[in-house]
Amino acid sequence: MNLFDPAFADRTGNMKASAIREILKITSQPGVISFAGGLPAPDLFPIEKIREASNHLLSTLGPLALQYSTTEGHLPLREWVANRLPNTSSDNVQIMSGSQQGLDLLGKIFLNKGDKVLVEAPTYLGAITSFNPYEPEYISVGMDQDGVDIEQLEGALETNQIKFIYLLPTFQNPSGRLMSLERRKAVVALAQKFKVPILEDDAYHYLGFDGQTLPTLYELDKETGGDNVIYMSTQSKILAPGLRVAWVVAPLNVIQKLVFAKQGADLHTPTFNQLVVYELLKDQAFLTEQISKIQTTYRTRCNLMLGAIEKYLPEDFIFQKPEGGMFFWMEGPQELNALDLLEAAVEEKTAFVPGQPFYADGGGLNTLRFSFSSATEEQLEVGMKGLGLAINKQLKRG
Amino acid sequence: MNLFDPAFADRTGNMKASAIREILKITSQPGVISFAGGLPAPDLFPIEKIREASNHLLSTLGPLALQYSTTEGHLPLREWVANRLPNTSSDNVQIMSGSQQGLDLLGKIFLNKGDKVLVEAPTYLGAITSFNPYEPEYISVGMDQDGVDIEQLEGALETNQIKFIYLLPTFQNPSGRLMSLERRKAVVALAQKFKVPILEDDAYHYLGFDGQTLPTLYELDKETGGDNVIYMSTQSKILAPGLRVAWVVAPLNVIQKLVFAKQGADLHTPTFNQLVVYELLKDQAFLTEQISKIQTTYRTRCNLMLGAIEKYLPEDFIFQKPEGGMFFWMEGPQELNALDLLEAAVEEKTAFVPGQPFYADGGGLNTLRFSFSSATEEQLEVGMKGLGLAINKQLKRG
Repeated sequence: MNLFDPAFADRTGNMKASAIREILKITSQPGVISFAGGLPAPDLFPIEKIREASNHLLSTLGPLALQYSTTEGHLPLREWVANRLPNTSSDNVQIMSGSQQGLDLLGKIFLNKGDKVLVEAPTYLGAITSFNPYEPEYISVGMDQDGVDIEQLEGALETNQIKFIYLLPTFQNPSGRLMSLERRKAVVALAQKFKVPILEDDAYHYLGFDGQTLPTLYELDKETGGDNVIYMSTQSKILAPGLRVAWVVAPLNVIQKLVFAKQGADLHTPTFNQLVVYELLKDQAFLTEQISKIQTTYRTRCNLMLGAIEKYLPEDFIFQKPEGGMFFWMEGPQELNALDLLEAAVEEKTAFVPGQPFYADGGGLNTLRFSFSSATEEQLEVGMKGLGLAINKQLKRG
Repeated sequence: MNLFDPAFADRTGNMKASAIREILKITSQPGVISFAGGLPAPDLFPIEKIREASNHLLSTLGPLALQYSTTEGHLPLREWVANRLPNTSSDNVQIMSGSQQGLDLLGKIFLNKGDKVLVEAPTYLGAITSFNPYEPEYISVGMDQDGVDIEQLEGALETNQIKFIYLLPTFQNPSGRLMSLERRKAVVALAQKFKVPILEDDAYHYLGFDGQTLPTLYELDKETGGDNVIYMSTQSKILAPGLRVAWVVAPLNVIQKLVFAKQGADLHTPTFNQLVVYELLKDQAFLTEQISKIQTTYRTRCNLMLGAIEKYLPEDFIFQKPEGGMFFWMEGPQELNALDLLEAAVEEKTAFVPGQPFYADGGGLNTLRFSFSSATEEQLEVGMKGLGLAINKQLKRG
């Protein structure tokens, strides 16, 4: 007797297995060289430093490190976040159990059924997964190599009542693109003009290969007197994603609602994890070295991937070399179906992620995402060669 | 320029600061002896064991302990949970970031606006906090010392379309009550008859003072051929709440929806925390000793509280001595307003939690909850004496 089938809420119709998740299952078959996953390089996790911090915290704080704690999060960690942003106090910072929770709870407090969320095409798939249960509609705006198309953005804002604009201006997942400073300024000005809040997802902030970043939308908004950008970032890409610690920075009235929402969602982010993360972040010498190590390693791996792509992939697979982040984004010829190509690629023991699931309104069937963050020279040589073969078969070439 | 005020979702109207949370702020004033919080005794947290497990895991698993992991949770931990339940496979187990997340995600997958949730009066306030954003209605059913009133329950099931029945049969928070075996059987039979699923919250399972527990509703349902109970429990009350690791056990079609919901909510529960918890749980000798230590300590503290209550509180404050759990529940005279009494108590430097917020439909204004889990003999002597004075003042006695 199973009584549950008819009883689900309407919103569960909007929940489904992430396409990526299903793809990762295929691509994790033994022997497959996969560029599909978006995993930070595990060889760069600061294991010893985390071990030291854990032992130190358990020795000095004892049970306090393992007890329930406040919903808002560990105050010194919130202060660390606030101190790196203009005109921001720790009261503006809510610690989250990963950026994914930030997306979920922002969806929860903002979205009524049918509300319109403006996203880039492509956009981060995980955001769609978080927002979907709140049953919004998506308005997609195109991009080029400098980020979101400003004319399209203005048009969308003119013709739609938008609840918020969700953007990843810095080394976007999936496209790896860095929005130009000019575009950033234009985006912030448009959002202010139309009084539509921006949700800026800045997970890849520290992953610029030359150590540089552009000003965030949050900073540009504050500089021009705005209070119109909700900012999210995380330690997952520079320390350890498995600890699940991230943060949302927002005006106080938004934080108040987030605190209520988080109380119902998981009471608080694990006390121990917040303490460990703060121990690492507050050690400026360590952090500088850790970030620099990641930047250097990812730059090297990106260059290796570039070499293998140029060597093995046809010239009508167009890409832009990333300046940071973890991903290569590619557009194949119009006739390419990247989902079919993936099947052919797995037969050749290599894998990537088709770009189509990253388009909230469909499209992008000929696009592909590759992660270089964990790729070795040997894997690139073998994997990209296999992909080249798969492309030739799939497109009936050579 | 702050643009956010008008833009919140309708459901945020249902989110507010937990009454308890506000009360805990008052009661955490310096010098106040508080029996208000529901905190597990920190002196019993297995700190050394957690330190050992952390070091062992970082040494042996290295980066795997800190990497992203599956949404379902750590398989050996899921197997540990399944092995303790009848006819249950690890596929039926979803690891949650604390029981609070279990409540949130079950609300998310089941509740449409206006759906009716049947709860005990009183019930766990945190469940209301989790369910509220999904805008259900509550149907409250009365209790006595043996648990929920079966006649009222049947009546409520006959006259209402109930989405699910939320129950805490074992040492309920707030009432401390243990539902009798007879009632358990009757509840399971009624739920089967009316084809209404039960959500059984079993957070206090191991906290029976004599080491005994009654069969869970989940077990009784399975024994009678049902598949009608969703079961939740946690390690928070026996290991460390600040790690935020708990579990939901459910039929596969429910688990599937929970996995989708959890993917959008926080991707997965922190890898490291799941691994640490499993290291401790799998050590049967340690676990047996740890649970026994907690049972003995809580029994002692409960007896001390009983002594102080009998010594200092008036006889028309009626209570039932708990057989387990963390709470004393008390009913004052009809004219008592426990919210007002709390103010008077804090003036006397002592505190408790008024019971009224635990009633989903209001009522219970003359009820009080006391936690004995962390109370010392001295605190009880001073705190209950102060409360006695506050009662006399408040009720204009003595």
